[in-house]
Amino acid sequence: MNSRVPAPDNLFDLSAVDPRAEQSLTLVDAEGVKIERIVSSGQASPPGFWYDQDFAEWVLVLAGSACLRLDGEAADRVLKPGDHLFIAARRKHRVEWTDAASATIWLAVHLRR
Amino acid sequence: MNSRVPAPDNLFDLSAVDPRAEQSLTLVDAEGVKIERIVSSGQASPPGFWYDQDFAEWVLVLAGSACLRLDGEAADRVLKPGDHLFIAARRKHRVEWTDAASATIWLAVHLRR
Repeated sequence: MNSRVPAPDNLFDLSAVDPRAEQSLTLVDAEGVKIERIVSSGQASPPGFWYDQDFAEWVLVLAGSACLRLDGEAADRVLKPGDHLFIAARRKHRVEWTDAASATIWLAVHLRR
Repeated sequence: MNSRVPAPDNLFDLSAVDPRAEQSLTLVDAEGVKIERIVSSGQASPPGFWYDQDFAEWVLVLAGSACLRLDGEAADRVLKPGDHLFIAARRKHRVEWTDAASATIWLAVHLRR
């Protein structure tokens, strides 16, 4: 989280992004739902790390590309702009890689109850 | 709603869109949240019509362009790709126009409680 950086009016605005760290900015936090813009600059999940969240999440890639691994699936999923994925609560997943050459812009919607 | 059309794997896939009608496809409907892809092909709200919804909504334009009017604001808001807007429940609004020359792809997140 970069709480001092305001969410941009346009999601493709990368002027406040430092590529040395992944940046998550909250766009909406209401009614149990959090919508975030995440900008990755080649970051990935650490080796052996799996996200194991108690809430469902929907992700959409807006720019760049990323590779996700869902626990139990035979193959990785490569996501390009416009590709989206619903990840149920407790479905373990990890980011194998994000584009090393250009920023990957994600939209993530967290569905809490 | 076009319930017989499955949601596309890629939100920029317009192969199942008929430009004679606005198309809404549900991507996620879980935990009180509905996420839709809407494709407009020049459609707008009828004259004098205002949306008056009992739920908050967040919209993002992914392609094309659109002009929204929020009740009480002095000017319209023109949204281009990457532009987004939170519309509180009961905040009246209307679509003044959508791009007549190319498809406008919206992402809409309905926040119900």
